[in-house]
Amino acid sequence: MRIGADYYPEHWEKERWKTDAEMMVKANIKVIRIGEFAWSLYEPEEGKYEFDWMDEALDFFGKYGIKVVMCTPSATPPKWMIDKYPDILQNDIHGNPKLFGTRKHYCFNSETYREKTKKLNTLIAKRYAKHPAIEAWQVDNELGWSNTTRCYCKSCENRFRSWLKEKYGTIDNLNKTYGTTFWSQTYRSFEELNIPKAGACYDTCHDTQGQNPALLLDYYRFCSDSVVEFTKESVDTIKEYSDLPITSNLLDAAINSGTGIDYFKLSKEFDFVTWDNYIEFQWGKAKPETVSRDHALLRSYKKKPFWVMEQQSGPCGWSKLGPTPTPGKLRLWTYQSVANGADTVVYFRWRACPFGTEELWHGILNHDGKPNRRYAEVSRVGAEMEELSKNYRALMPRARVAIIKSFDSEWSQSIHRQVEGLYYDSLLLDYYRPFWNMGIPVDFVTAEEDLNRYDLVLAPMLMMVSDEGKKNIETYAQAGGKVLFSFRSGIKDMYNNMLTETVPGVFADLAGVEVEDYDPLLEKTTATTGVFGNGMAHMWCDIVKPVTAKVIGKYTSDFYAGEACMTVNQIGKGEVYYLGCDLDEKAMKMLAVYLGRKAGIDMDLYKVDGVEVVDATDGTNDALFILNYNDHSVIVSMEQSYENMITHETVENVVELKPYDVAILKEAN
Amino acid sequence: MRIGADYYPEHWEKERWKTDAEMMVKANIKVIRIGEFAWSLYEPEEGKYEFDWMDEALDFFGKYGIKVVMCTPSATPPKWMIDKYPDILQNDIHGNPKLFGTRKHYCFNSETYREKTKKLNTLIAKRYAKHPAIEAWQVDNELGWSNTTRCYCKSCENRFRSWLKEKYGTIDNLNKTYGTTFWSQTYRSFEELNIPKAGACYDTCHDTQGQNPALLLDYYRFCSDSVVEFTKESVDTIKEYSDLPITSNLLDAAINSGTGIDYFKLSKEFDFVTWDNYIEFQWGKAKPETVSRDHALLRSYKKKPFWVMEQQSGPCGWSKLGPTPTPGKLRLWTYQSVANGADTVVYFRWRACPFGTEELWHGILNHDGKPNRRYAEVSRVGAEMEELSKNYRALMPRARVAIIKSFDSEWSQSIHRQVEGLYYDSLLLDYYRPFWNMGIPVDFVTAEEDLNRYDLVLAPMLMMVSDEGKKNIETYAQAGGKVLFSFRSGIKDMYNNMLTETVPGVFADLAGVEVEDYDPLLEKTTATTGVFGNGMAHMWCDIVKPVTAKVIGKYTSDFYAGEACMTVNQIGKGEVYYLGCDLDEKAMKMLAVYLGRKAGIDMDLYKVDGVEVVDATDGTNDALFILNYNDHSVIVSMEQSYENMITHETVENVVELKPYDVAILKEAN
Amino acid sequence: MRIGADYYPEHWEKERWKTDAEMMVKANIKVIRIGEFAWSLYEPEEGKYEFDWMDEALDFFGKYGIKVVMCTPSATPPKWMIDKYPDILQNDIHGNPKLFGTRKHYCFNSETYREKTKKLNTLIAKRYAKHPAIEAWQVDNELGWSNTTRCYCKSCENRFRSWLKEKYGTIDNLNKTYGTTFWSQTYRSFEELNIPKAGACYDTCHDTQGQNPALLLDYYRFCSDSVVEFTKESVDTIKEYSDLPITSNLLDAAINSGTGIDYFKLSKEFDFVTWDNYIEFQWGKAKPETVSRDHALLRSYKKKPFWVMEQQSGPCGWSKLGPTPTPGKLRLWTYQSVANGADTVVYFRWRACPFGTEELWHGILNHDGKPNRRYAEVSRVGAEMEELSKNYRALMPRARVAIIKSFDSEWSQSIHRQVEGLYYDSLLLDYYRPFWNMGIPVDFVTAEEDLNRYDLVLAPMLMMVSDEGKKNIETYAQAGGKVLFSFRSGIKDMYNNMLTETVPGVFADLAGVEVEDYDPLLEKTTATTGVFGNGMAHMWCDIVKPVTAKVIGKYTSDFYAGEACMTVNQIGKGEVYYLGCDLDEKAMKMLAVYLGRKAGIDMDLYKVDGVEVVDATDGTNDALFILNYNDHSVIVSMEQSYENMITHETVENVVELKPYDVAILKEAN
Repeated sequence: MRIGADYYPEHWEKERWKTDAEMMVKANIKVIRIGEFAWSLYEPEEGKYEFDWMDEALDFFGKYGIKVVMCTPSATPPKWMIDKYPDILQNDIHGNPKLFGTRKHYCFNSETYREKTKKLNTLIAKRYAKHPAIEAWQVDNELGWSNTTRCYCKSCENRFRSWLKEKYGTIDNLNKTYGTTFWSQTYRSFEELNIPKAGACYDTCHDTQGQNPALLLDYYRFCSDSVVEFTKESVDTIKEYSDLPITSNLLDAAINSGTGIDYFKLSKEFDFVTWDNYIEFQWGKAKPETVSRDHALLRSYKKKPFWVMEQQSGPCGWSKLGPTPTPGKLRLWTYQSVANGADTVVYFRWRACPFGTEELWHGILNHDGKPNRRYAEVSRVGAEMEELSKNYRALMPRARVAIIKSFDSEWSQSIHRQVEGLYYDSLLLDYYRPFWNMGIPVDFVTAEEDLNRYDLVLAPMLMMVSDEGKKNIETYAQAGGKVLFSFRSGIKDMYNNMLTETVPGVFADLAGVEVEDYDPLLEKTTATTGVFGNGMAHMWCDIVKPVTAKVIGKYTSDFYAGEACMTVNQIGKGEVYYLGCDLDEKAMKMLAVYLGRKAGIDMDLYKVDGVEVVDATDGTNDALFILNYNDHSVIVSMEQSYENMITHETVENVVELKPYDVAILKEAN
Repeated sequence: MRIGADYYPEHWEKERWKTDAEMMVKANIKVIRIGEFAWSLYEPEEGKYEFDWMDEALDFFGKYGIKVVMCTPSATPPKWMIDKYPDILQNDIHGNPKLFGTRKHYCFNSETYREKTKKLNTLIAKRYAKHPAIEAWQVDNELGWSNTTRCYCKSCENRFRSWLKEKYGTIDNLNKTYGTTFWSQTYRSFEELNIPKAGACYDTCHDTQGQNPALLLDYYRFCSDSVVEFTKESVDTIKEYSDLPITSNLLDAAINSGTGIDYFKLSKEFDFVTWDNYIEFQWGKAKPETVSRDHALLRSYKKKPFWVMEQQSGPCGWSKLGPTPTPGKLRLWTYQSVANGADTVVYFRWRACPFGTEELWHGILNHDGKPNRRYAEVSRVGAEMEELSKNYRALMPRARVAIIKSFDSEWSQSIHRQVEGLYYDSLLLDYYRPFWNMGIPVDFVTAEEDLNRYDLVLAPMLMMVSDEGKKNIETYAQAGGKVLFSFRSGIKDMYNNMLTETVPGVFADLAGVEVEDYDPLLEKTTATTGVFGNGMAHMWCDIVKPVTAKVIGKYTSDFYAGEACMTVNQIGKGEVYYLGCDLDEKAMKMLAVYLGRKAGIDMDLYKVDGVEVVDATDGTNDALFILNYNDHSVIVSMEQSYENMITHETVENVVELKPYDVAILKEAN
Repeated sequence: MRIGADYYPEHWEKERWKTDAEMMVKANIKVIRIGEFAWSLYEPEEGKYEFDWMDEALDFFGKYGIKVVMCTPSATPPKWMIDKYPDILQNDIHGNPKLFGTRKHYCFNSETYREKTKKLNTLIAKRYAKHPAIEAWQVDNELGWSNTTRCYCKSCENRFRSWLKEKYGTIDNLNKTYGTTFWSQTYRSFEELNIPKAGACYDTCHDTQGQNPALLLDYYRFCSDSVVEFTKESVDTIKEYSDLPITSNLLDAAINSGTGIDYFKLSKEFDFVTWDNYIEFQWGKAKPETVSRDHALLRSYKKKPFWVMEQQSGPCGWSKLGPTPTPGKLRLWTYQSVANGADTVVYFRWRACPFGTEELWHGILNHDGKPNRRYAEVSRVGAEMEELSKNYRALMPRARVAIIKSFDSEWSQSIHRQVEGLYYDSLLLDYYRPFWNMGIPVDFVTAEEDLNRYDLVLAPMLMMVSDEGKKNIETYAQAGGKVLFSFRSGIKDMYNNMLTETVPGVFADLAGVEVEDYDPLLEKTTATTGVFGNGMAHMWCDIVKPVTAKVIGKYTSDFYAGEACMTVNQIGKGEVYYLGCDLDEKAMKMLAVYLGRKAGIDMDLYKVDGVEVVDATDGTNDALFILNYNDHSVIVSMEQSYENMITHETVENVVELKPYDVAILKEAN
């Protein structure tokens, strides 16, 4: 448990380094991340390399005992390279090259770019592998940031054709799978296939609407695979010279919507994962449950502790600022990260840079570099963690509930949303939120991984599943697991075609139901009643016919009043639930209590609004985090006696928390 | 009176055909439409043709007594053709080629495309002209769908120059007509003219705003003419081999706004017209009066019964679904079609296709192909129509009111809307609605056709009119006809220039008024009183000065309070009304009553909200349709005794209709 | 004090000229502007010139004693020229050439265009320099209209590189200044620099978001300089042959947001300035204070009387019309122009043109050319001015307050808005409005010009200032001046980088404060109290720490309640105020009263809502304008006796004004 800062020695006069290092040490900043945008400093001209500046910086900060995460600088190929090798440029969805001028302007499939990256990465890895200051590596920066996963250039088109050839073998097989008899889209060879750019459908030329959904999903998968392949190449380059752990910074913040990369696959390439956590800035404000969900995703990709590689430390934005973090919020956000599985929290950035795109983006320090109230708050956190580290190693929440997260389903649903207002990501949050509200940690899983560590598995809108995944879920249920499927689960094959089996298709036997009729709700709502109390659906209603299942919820309005909306089916020793509609927040909460209790989870924890409770452990010692997001004090009642590990006060009956304050409780002996 | 289904034999295993045919027969489905997207099946490679599959399908379904509408597949030129002849691709308003990937990606003026189409159409016409299953032909599919009427390619530019040359003879004549002294836009030759792409006006580069309005209108006319010419070519090809009737499916649904084709002109090429009728889907919900208005347009293009070639049969949309049709709605919508002049109603589509762009678009059957509640409802309609056909031939409403529909005026107004919120299409609906509300059928006419069959002719915003049209209207009035012009009528010449005659220009003498001052209403309203009661204008107010006319309406607010807003002028035996402002719905209803009575129409029919009443006849037998769009029962009082031709019950005093129910009444003898 | 009309002899048959001239004379129209779009008439083919038509027009109208403003027609290079020299076309922000079809389709840096313009201007200047009808010249038309200042073509890129080379000397200097170490953007030569087109940042490819702010600001300056250079060339061409005054028509109307031209610099090239004043039209409605602010800007560019070159005279718009001006409004708007410093008011246009883009744009006369109520109103104004001219020469308001307007700050803020909802232009209006409300004229100034003529100088969001400017402000304060800076003042260097001095950077010493913490308000408000009463901030709050200053305002909510929001610092004999937040309208009014009184200005004038009072003088005679924008009568109390110079009535105690009426009062002797 410790803090760090993202630092750019190249932005400041060397005379300033000393002040910075001393202020860092004073604040208990243990680690800095360095060098992720420095390509033009390393290679100012083709083949001419300069490392002295970095040698100097590493030696300098190393002397202060500050550890370093060393980056590969592939996110910013320099101007001379772009001018000489314009094929490096990523192409947008219309096939136009992106311009030099910001960053991430490269195509992952450009051979030139791949070669240039490998060459520089090799030199860096070789030179710094043994530097005593370095403790880990970061590859690239924010892979897939700002829609850069999907490129529409010629290189990508060629590689995509090979990818398809490998997948389908023959063009007839592809034609059959894609259903190209529809609208005369039959291909005679893989060379006839184009990447699905925008502009095929006349009045929506800004996107790919109307194109073959199987082709689109394949292209999304190919793009994700391309990023993973690029990443693997960088990781392998480093591994040739270094045994230190390797990572990159992911982007799961709700505000940064999906990057189009399958993070379960990408994470396999890393020794540990990290992410960039901005809570209130130019592009929006994240609610605490959303940030918690993002942390949950991060710890789930590898089922182990992670880092926050960029944690917000001031007001930020490019052209407009979000609000300044109210006193206490930096500390609160940091402990939220720790409670949910973050081992190290690195603040972005040490000091606001006075030039360039992010000249408005504030770090811990303002442009003037003087100690300020945010520095004071960070220093407090640094000191507390120094103390806490004596009692705790990396903490992880004890999750007994899991939600299946399927990137295939998410992308499929982004191609065909099914109904206005429905988003895969939001629906998953709707299932996460009620457990979060009651202090029950939830992990995310793939359909294929081991489910037995969980008492309850939720599969909202799992539109498609592999044979292996289906079998895995079935086995889990057979053995006594509790599983829930929602409407629109199981309706597609893995190629993004609709199944001709009656809805819910793949899962019809498990759920023991058939759905002949469903009502996508446009501008209306439908009332329901069931084990979740009374609820309102506003997006979708399946009229559920039980085959082997038992009805536990019904519609009470519209022409299907009296029909089933929720069922339960006995499968072996387990139970499979089917919920044919979406529900409002209150009903979802009651549903969580119902399902939790069925799964043997204690759902009685007293919970105050705007307070996050996380039950975590480092394997030896437990830590009950109480985080107050309210701008007023709260009193939380406790059933046992605890020691507050920050203040070392004893907690009896209740713990009182000031606005934005935090308690870490350990059962009193 | 009968039903059909749109069917795609190529989408299904042949083993399934039998089930489909049997289910069709059982449901009294008499006709299927077939083959409109099958180019790549007919011609998988250049010059290599395959017809066996279609032979087989026709023979198969023919054996069941199911009739076929055979299509030309020109809406989907295959991939190999696009790759080899990229000049086929339509260009968007920026001059960029549309991509392969959906459909209708071709330019009507591409010589290659025209030649390829003609060649395949010839082969199809020749081969199937005498096939006993075929009863009619459909040319292409949804001509002009999704802004595909107006192409911006080089071929179009060249043809447009010839079109202009033919129209204007000399460039001096064009310059004079277009007023090119304005902003130094003088041309020295026809070769200097460009088609009006987007991008001339800097901050509105997404459209053609700011360009010469005469040039724009000419380009719109040229594009419409191009579609008509292409269509004629296809029709002529078929006629060489077949005597069967030929049609295509138009798109007058309110939700699909105008296609940019002059449907009066296009319809001349066909033996009968059809259209695609979607009421509630991804792209919106049409009100019953709007659908009724669309039916009225369809029967008006040729002044004879038409078909619905695609009638909604389930929840539909591409990426998102609209609501599922409530039980009873499929039947209700079908009878609305029949009441308003549809002879045959073909459901789109038989069964949901599990692949391709429209994998979410539901047919009568779901993806699973099993009988369901929609199949049951369609079967009921099929059975009823089987019965009704014994008593009725094709029905047509008895219209005594006509609204002049001018494509020239519509396009001119789309170029210069005159005021925020004003749309030609909506204004026509404002005049249609009150008559619809009172069960008075209304036809649409051109200014040039015979008006004498109508007692009342309305000309809302007839911005421009041909000399012949003006004369026609005048003759009609002289002979005793009643005519109404609205504000903005007669203000332009046929080239889209403003007239220098005082408003209402062309019609000033007929209306007997002059308008010096007019108030386009931005963010305000003006009160009026007159023969229409008290009303509010919210878009436009002409301050009308009577010259020979008599004032029958005045403004009661704003600086022109006390001035005339409506007048009537005696012309021969007839009367010409001028309404200088728009009016709210209530006032429009009173105006309709006033005008109807003046025209000798019985306006006393008792009418219930949400109920459509249509007085129709097949020439021999009458049918009074009562259609209930309410989700509750209604009681409609009747002044005579009737027989309900569906239930064969006698109706005395009142008829009671369940939600979405229909009655077809015939006067009891 | 006189009126004129914009006239296009080329649009009308010569037979009509006589009627027009006679009607003009009758209405006291003294001057017409002519020829600004007539290039293709002068030069119908390359090198073939025709001047007879203009000779004839000048002779004709000259005979009626009507004076002429003669234009250079460079706004509309003809079609033949564009076809032959396509490099003339301006390129849009994506680098695509603008199309021929409207106007202003040229690049100011195109050598061909510059040469062609010079050649024709020379011929025109030579031919007409001595024509007795001509009294002044207009260069081009609405320079920079509709985003035409910033072109993105190759010529511009090349010239921009030279411009940068001249400014920075070496590429190292540019790199250092731009901070190109940020994101590896180092350049090796000026040739590597590109103009900042849209498309560098992937998901915002419609604009230049995310690019280097120093590069962007330089490009904006370069573009403004290019327009000035082009203008100077045209002005110099005329001056070779003519001694008459030269101008062009600017676009400061609030509705036409900034043109991207530094009007202080541009105005230096002219003998007098003019502008186009549209108040209510297709693109919006301007409030009286906004129009007044625009007039104030115009008189400030050269600190002398100006003209309105296009004053609205009817309903106008391109595709949609705004409302017709209520009777009295044309007269009211004209007197507002005069009150605020306009010497001559030219109505656009004499008569509505029946063809071309602006066929809907109404002039004084309608398309029919008959006298109408607007002609009658204009005639009344013409007659009144004829009388008023006997007593008054050009009037100018007596301004004792000045607001610093910095185009550099405006452009910098357009690149980085700092916070949602904040606009430089609106903030300046927030400071102008309260003084306008109380009848206190306000001028606009640069930071570098003589401030001593003002008692109070306001510097809202003066983000950057030259050394000279800073010194000038300091000297002014030292000598006893009162100065106010707002939040975000002084934070940047002149290259658009953030300063590393503590906020407010450049002005920290003058203001005597330091700001460590600031709260950009997103979706919240903060309460304040101070010398401005109680107020609410909703965009920005600096937490102000007084160093040498005294606190005169505090926050009363949020975590910084009790901290200072406003201070005053003694500098020499003067006082420097710092206001760290924005304030609501009521508080701004109280602040204006407070500051005005401190500055010795009489702030007690009784003021009625919706009434503009302007205290003006022609140097000899005073004129107190009372302008009533209300649609009802108002009674304004007066402390002295006056003569109403329009009616020649005596005003005692009160003056009563009808809706939209005007009084011009002179103290009774």
